[in-house]
Amino acid sequence: MISWKNLDTLESYDALDAGEFCLKDAMSGENGAARVKKYTAKMAAGMDFNYAARPVDDGILEQLKKLAEEAQLSEKFAALYNGEVINTGEKRMVLHHMTRGQLGDAVTADGADKREFYLAQQKAIAAFADRVHSGEITNAAGEKFTTVVQIGIGGSDLGPRAMYLSLENWAKKNNTFYMDARFISNVDPDDASAVLNGIDAAKSIFVLVSKSGTTLETLTNEAFVKDALKKKGLDPAKHMIAVTSETSPLAKSSDYLAAFFMDDYIGGRYSSTSAVGGAVLSLAFGGDVFARFLNGAAEEDKLAATQDVLDNADMLDALIGVYERNILGYPATAVLPYSQALSRFPAHLQQLDMESNGKSVNRFGEPVDYVTGPVIFGEPGTNGQHSFYQLLHQGTDIIPLQFVGFKASQIGNDVDIQGSTSQQKLCANVAAQIMAFACGKQSDDLNKNFEGNRPSSIIIGEQLTPEALGALLAHFENKVMFQGFLWNVNSFDQEGVQLGKVLAKRVLAHETDGALRAYSDLLNI
Amino acid sequence: MISWKNLDTLESYDALDAGEFCLKDAMSGENGAARVKKYTAKMAAGMDFNYAARPVDDGILEQLKKLAEEAQLSEKFAALYNGEVINTGEKRMVLHHMTRGQLGDAVTADGADKREFYLAQQKAIAAFADRVHSGEITNAAGEKFTTVVQIGIGGSDLGPRAMYLSLENWAKKNNTFYMDARFISNVDPDDASAVLNGIDAAKSIFVLVSKSGTTLETLTNEAFVKDALKKKGLDPAKHMIAVTSETSPLAKSSDYLAAFFMDDYIGGRYSSTSAVGGAVLSLAFGGDVFARFLNGAAEEDKLAATQDVLDNADMLDALIGVYERNILGYPATAVLPYSQALSRFPAHLQQLDMESNGKSVNRFGEPVDYVTGPVIFGEPGTNGQHSFYQLLHQGTDIIPLQFVGFKASQIGNDVDIQGSTSQQKLCANVAAQIMAFACGKQSDDLNKNFEGNRPSSIIIGEQLTPEALGALLAHFENKVMFQGFLWNVNSFDQEGVQLGKVLAKRVLAHETDGALRAYSDLLNI
Repeated sequence: MISWKNLDTLESYDALDAGEFCLKDAMSGENGAARVKKYTAKMAAGMDFNYAARPVDDGILEQLKKLAEEAQLSEKFAALYNGEVINTGEKRMVLHHMTRGQLGDAVTADGADKREFYLAQQKAIAAFADRVHSGEITNAAGEKFTTVVQIGIGGSDLGPRAMYLSLENWAKKNNTFYMDARFISNVDPDDASAVLNGIDAAKSIFVLVSKSGTTLETLTNEAFVKDALKKKGLDPAKHMIAVTSETSPLAKSSDYLAAFFMDDYIGGRYSSTSAVGGAVLSLAFGGDVFARFLNGAAEEDKLAATQDVLDNADMLDALIGVYERNILGYPATAVLPYSQALSRFPAHLQQLDMESNGKSVNRFGEPVDYVTGPVIFGEPGTNGQHSFYQLLHQGTDIIPLQFVGFKASQIGNDVDIQGSTSQQKLCANVAAQIMAFACGKQSDDLNKNFEGNRPSSIIIGEQLTPEALGALLAHFENKVMFQGFLWNVNSFDQEGVQLGKVLAKRVLAHETDGALRAYSDLLNI
Repeated sequence: MISWKNLDTLESYDALDAGEFCLKDAMSGENGAARVKKYTAKMAAGMDFNYAARPVDDGILEQLKKLAEEAQLSEKFAALYNGEVINTGEKRMVLHHMTRGQLGDAVTADGADKREFYLAQQKAIAAFADRVHSGEITNAAGEKFTTVVQIGIGGSDLGPRAMYLSLENWAKKNNTFYMDARFISNVDPDDASAVLNGIDAAKSIFVLVSKSGTTLETLTNEAFVKDALKKKGLDPAKHMIAVTSETSPLAKSSDYLAAFFMDDYIGGRYSSTSAVGGAVLSLAFGGDVFARFLNGAAEEDKLAATQDVLDNADMLDALIGVYERNILGYPATAVLPYSQALSRFPAHLQQLDMESNGKSVNRFGEPVDYVTGPVIFGEPGTNGQHSFYQLLHQGTDIIPLQFVGFKASQIGNDVDIQGSTSQQKLCANVAAQIMAFACGKQSDDLNKNFEGNRPSSIIIGEQLTPEALGALLAHFENKVMFQGFLWNVNSFDQEGVQLGKVLAKRVLAHETDGALRAYSDLLNI
């Protein structure tokens, strides 16, 4: 029997106690080396989650294990993947895991087995992509399509875009690169204009992505693109596919070459492994690469279902994160991938995490008396080192860090300078940063003093392959889910985005007064 | 006589008191409209800084004015632009304002009048760019160069890249676009590989940017590029220019077509208006556009020298920010430009702000007892609305917001959907967000309740022109400077980045033990 309780009503939470633990001391000397070997958990795709430099020891881990049990994290995850209505606000199941595997019971909804439904969409997309790549589906002039343009915003943009950028160079290197991808998201007309100016529209397929078929930015950009295509003498219906829900107005429209489906059980920010990511990624890299990406995610999901906390990297990351946020009081978390290919991965996690857990009420709509989701931000290393790391090292707040690193680059071209390759320099930097943050360095000149005691963990993989990317994505999705369980919030709705939409409509209808009218006047609306 | 005192030793800081002020009440009804009209300050390039939705009223502003006076903000700025050694840690003057104008006394250093020196560099770059554009300087085959690639990291990357993206579409529209720009920054070898794979190297000029001539990432990427050029049978010396200091090893090298200079009085993160930004921006858009950008910054600098706080948007923004950070206790600040062209402007501000003021000691190296620089993050609207705004509206922390909006788009193509253009939708959204954050909306369903009282300001301009961009950049540079004065920190050094560099070298030299050795092993170094 699952009981949904606020974090601060749990005995094991009350009992949490940082005790005498000092990260700086723990990570110094040979004891530190022992921690690096010990505090690690296996992830999918051969990756490891190493949390030696997080502020925990055996005693604190034992406490967190009790917290995981009392909060019934495993049971709640099982309820989720077995099809209970976990998104209570919107009264929906939460099935994004099922886009890449099946962890428990069959789930039937809308007259279909949902695993079969998602798999059928994946296959239909792969088949469509094959026909485009082979030249069976072409433009009116019989020319092959060379570019795919995703039109979507939020979860229909950030995740798919981050995943595309993550695999673009890998796919080029491994000859699984078929089409360039571009993205139009912002309602700023310059976004669509610039993308259209930079492509050969006659050889482009546009993927319109909107679950409801009513997202104003996306429909506006669709109209923008159709307008541009018509001006070039092209038939938009021959250049556009839709990704939407079966009940949306777009589903059966003749305006599209084809339509592929997601459903209400996949939140936008969790949709990269559904048709939302599937269409653009399969067109860009082929259905096989997309399948490999899903396999990595599925494998990680299985690990997330592991009961033993110490073997469950996703749950462990979640628990330590809540400990850092609620017990130690750290206000934000930085995501720092040492991989240029992951340049937009932090922006995706920013949505995933902040939109899921940036809540002040629990899943029953009651206010909570503790802080929930932190601010998430990040840029790739080593770039960040030359930017905001100053504050991370010597600022007045402590910001926990989530590093990601790979032993090998994706393209494999490298150069040996001063006795090391660029890839070695990249890896040396992330190792050095972990230790600089954890242990600091004493100096009598306080301007050059490093306090240390700044926690971090690192996920280490061999190379950023499709499987590794899938595992990485699933890791953070599952981490966010477990944190939502701990905070007892509904991580799957987003009522906080509604008010702005309502007011924006009012501005456009000129139905405003007071300050809103005054701002509208200043902006010439 | 200037006296540098810690913020918490100032009487006017002790006296700061939020009193009964309630933003939600203040912004409601016609009183709110009156605030929008009243609480605004002129900026350069015809822009306005509107702070009606920040948590201040006449009484609090009066207190902040006293704080500005007691902290001697204007006198300190004057000392800076008159050439006093403000960067005490590194014992250097701080002269980035002089790259775009002269606000006070002539400053002589290294045997030259510094204003004349910066101007001479600007002119030399413009002349060089002219010769490239006219075809006087070509590749060995006599073909015009079409692409400029900046090789630099940190301030040699983030600012110039953000500025380039900000003006790219504007310049294309206004026929001042000469060359595509690309950027190589990360030591990750895939960064350089991907850029090189995406350009025609034979028609590319590379700009190597390193003040000291010793930045490891940049020299490594230079070697990477030279290697690639040689493999293509090209002579690197005919494809590369340097931006460096006159005393650096690069300055007189025959490895470059030309060298342009900055100096020790320009910090990396303040160097977009120096030769660091000048070379790539003049090559991309022409020297005239770069000059217009500098004019916008110079005009804003003049306003920053205004003594009356209420007429000084830069100082006002700084004061209110410190009030929000230190009195109200808000942990982070989001920068939210409603302009896709400003997509990387928040990443630049992240460096500018966090590297400048992320300090725990004052300018004398003594610990401070108050928080200093906050975490800075942001993405363009409307994209952010579909991402992390959920947390901003309904999360447990209050995050002050800095909006930017323009009445007109840069390209001017637009489409009318549901009775409004995309540009109108964009502007309607930012107006709506300000009010949603400030006033919220009560609901008995607490999941749909918006508390409001979330402060923001907005900078409004006609269009993102070179002048507007210069003014915007200078606004934030000056804001950060004034906040540094208030916190009594040295905003112009960055000792916090040193330890990581030292440890990374040690890893590469295999001179490590303990945990650092263990991490190095895990990463196969």
